[in-house]
Amino acid sequence: MPDASPSGFDADSDQALSDVFRIHRGGKMEIVATAPLENRDDLSRAYTPGVAQVCTAIAQDEALFREYTWAARTVAVVTDGTAVLGLGDIGPKAAMPVMEGKAVLFKRFAGLNSVPICLNTKDPDEIVDIVSALAPSFGGINLEDISAPRCFDIESRLIERLNIPVFHDDQHGTAIVTLAALRNACLLTNRALADLRVVVAGAGAAGVAITKMLLAAGVGDIAVADSRGIVHASRGPLTPVKAELAALTNRAGITGSLADALAGADVLVGVSGGLIAEEAVAKMAPGSFIFAMANPTPEVHPEIAAKYAAVVATGRSDYPNQINNVLAFPGIFAGAFDARARHITQDMKLAAANALAEVVLNELRPDAILPAPFDPRVAPAVAAAVAKAA
Amino acid sequence: MPDASPSGFDADSDQALSDVFRIHRGGKMEIVATAPLENRDDLSRAYTPGVAQVCTAIAQDEALFREYTWAARTVAVVTDGTAVLGLGDIGPKAAMPVMEGKAVLFKRFAGLNSVPICLNTKDPDEIVDIVSALAPSFGGINLEDISAPRCFDIESRLIERLNIPVFHDDQHGTAIVTLAALRNACLLTNRALADLRVVVAGAGAAGVAITKMLLAAGVGDIAVADSRGIVHASRGPLTPVKAELAALTNRAGITGSLADALAGADVLVGVSGGLIAEEAVAKMAPGSFIFAMANPTPEVHPEIAAKYAAVVATGRSDYPNQINNVLAFPGIFAGAFDARARHITQDMKLAAANALAEVVLNELRPDAILPAPFDPRVAPAVAAAVAKAA
Repeated sequence: MPDASPSGFDADSDQALSDVFRIHRGGKMEIVATAPLENRDDLSRAYTPGVAQVCTAIAQDEALFREYTWAARTVAVVTDGTAVLGLGDIGPKAAMPVMEGKAVLFKRFAGLNSVPICLNTKDPDEIVDIVSALAPSFGGINLEDISAPRCFDIESRLIERLNIPVFHDDQHGTAIVTLAALRNACLLTNRALADLRVVVAGAGAAGVAITKMLLAAGVGDIAVADSRGIVHASRGPLTPVKAELAALTNRAGITGSLADALAGADVLVGVSGGLIAEEAVAKMAPGSFIFAMANPTPEVHPEIAAKYAAVVATGRSDYPNQINNVLAFPGIFAGAFDARARHITQDMKLAAANALAEVVLNELRPDAILPAPFDPRVAPAVAAAVAKAA
Repeated sequence: MPDASPSGFDADSDQALSDVFRIHRGGKMEIVATAPLENRDDLSRAYTPGVAQVCTAIAQDEALFREYTWAARTVAVVTDGTAVLGLGDIGPKAAMPVMEGKAVLFKRFAGLNSVPICLNTKDPDEIVDIVSALAPSFGGINLEDISAPRCFDIESRLIERLNIPVFHDDQHGTAIVTLAALRNACLLTNRALADLRVVVAGAGAAGVAITKMLLAAGVGDIAVADSRGIVHASRGPLTPVKAELAALTNRAGITGSLADALAGADVLVGVSGGLIAEEAVAKMAPGSFIFAMANPTPEVHPEIAAKYAAVVATGRSDYPNQINNVLAFPGIFAGAFDARARHITQDMKLAAANALAEVVLNELRPDAILPAPFDPRVAPAVAAAVAKAA
């Protein structure tokens, strides 16, 4: 099995930087024909006049689209460039390398073709209309790096409007992998999800989705903290998204700051990008789990976290227990396509998290609660579980 | 050199049909990563954290987009499915096999990556807005199979709005290859373009573009005929497109039907899809050229045309002198990209036609006035001429 131990890659070295730009020259992907194109007979089959027969067949029976085009298993990776990695609103052109990267990861890990689409608009109505108009060209839409809170409505409107899977990975991919990590941390320490009091630091795309997924999975209680502190109904005017969070969470009725929430908490999920003081972490319950996922600077440095927590995870490849979305999105879409699902439901996401966790069930260690990204068991296991749940 | 003699492919045989569907299974194209993705260091370079450096570099200097992404040399093949081959308005999903075919032809003949985009709208305003929003993702836009007369405005508005090449191949690709064929027919028979009286049968996308290109190349006079007969100003209310044609053409002032126009004409360019009676063709001037380009049923059957004309061309691969757009569009875009041209100008199109004609300058025969589609000299020659003219 591929090594799950941390990578030694030093992203800041001159050599590393030079290598990064070198492998990006000309982009990271290309198109390849899968039909022969060597002579006129080939042309007559792959193009005119032969292709007209295929068009006619699909026009008469749209179900044949899936069989005779590439599109039904091709994922569009769609962004408007407003929330690219930790770089923020850098726009569509600067976002392209990430979207190309996502596309080649779909191919590498699940054999799915994928096309990067970077849009020159930030208007949510336009984004919804444009993606809807593109929909015949693809089998599924992976929304990527679209800023919160716009991303929630954009995704839900597209889900409503389209009959192909729509999935914002920054929300749900992160949530799925986080849940898998949490399940395995519980198993390692003989805890139950229902016994845990969780604090989610950050109420953006990831924080909202993680919260909802953990609740669906049966976590005991969750308090969500944003930049103003704990999200609760009596705090004052809340956006619709946060009002919903307030209604779903914090049964313990905690008020105040993130630090107040962390006192006695069992789990910290860091998805805020902000730094969390050691004193706050020190007040967590014993045997805690700290998942500090900001990249490249985790909300709690793993070495500090290790002083207090039983299990530590980050988003970085050079520390143990990397919470890496690549463990989820390839298998999610592959499973959805295999099942010809029109939507990726909550049940499918929960099934994905369970299957992901189960891959390393017999190999659990505190520094190995998730499979390595290159573990070849992952995508097939996730796909199978997702298809079954569809 | 590849054989320019007619293909023996029988598109209607059971075997051929079975082969067509077989090679279409799963589509005709796939994505392939060009960056290594075998281990975590690879991931750290092609994706996070390394990719962030590339994004930042492009955000600071947009010119680096061309160097570090695939997009600047990638052509979007865009349709709304309203005029697919000879099948008409079959919609975006049924159009996909043609668009995939076009995409793999861009790759096969000019090494350009290309993505098929089939839109779920027919509204010209929406099409213009959507393609404009997609533009950061591509280096050029090839509009395909969008019905006339909507295609003219859609193309011109996109040309105005975008700073990447926009090219409706059904218009200009056909025009370029037609002009190249006409040049060589003239050379073969010691005629000059300026001496020719041309009749263009059909005032759709191809007919309008061919007419304008032949005029730009110096053809003596052109009469255009649509389903109502010769397009001339005193015929009654004309659409804007046809009013423009009437103003540019028919200096001889011919009125009446297509047959009236053909009497004594030197050239017939058939792009109407309708059948033209032998008696009308018989009244053309001696030594005429007949280019009957409808597929699969030419406006004049080549064997009938051969009774009267000095040079006969069709759109079919199983007759001599195939007027095949694949002789133009790959080299056109490659040349535009090589020159970093923001638009494909009339001069670039004329240069393409000249270069295409010149490829077979020393090999001209009445049944070989154009190169074969697979002639490897074609795309490089066209690209070089287009880049030079840019």
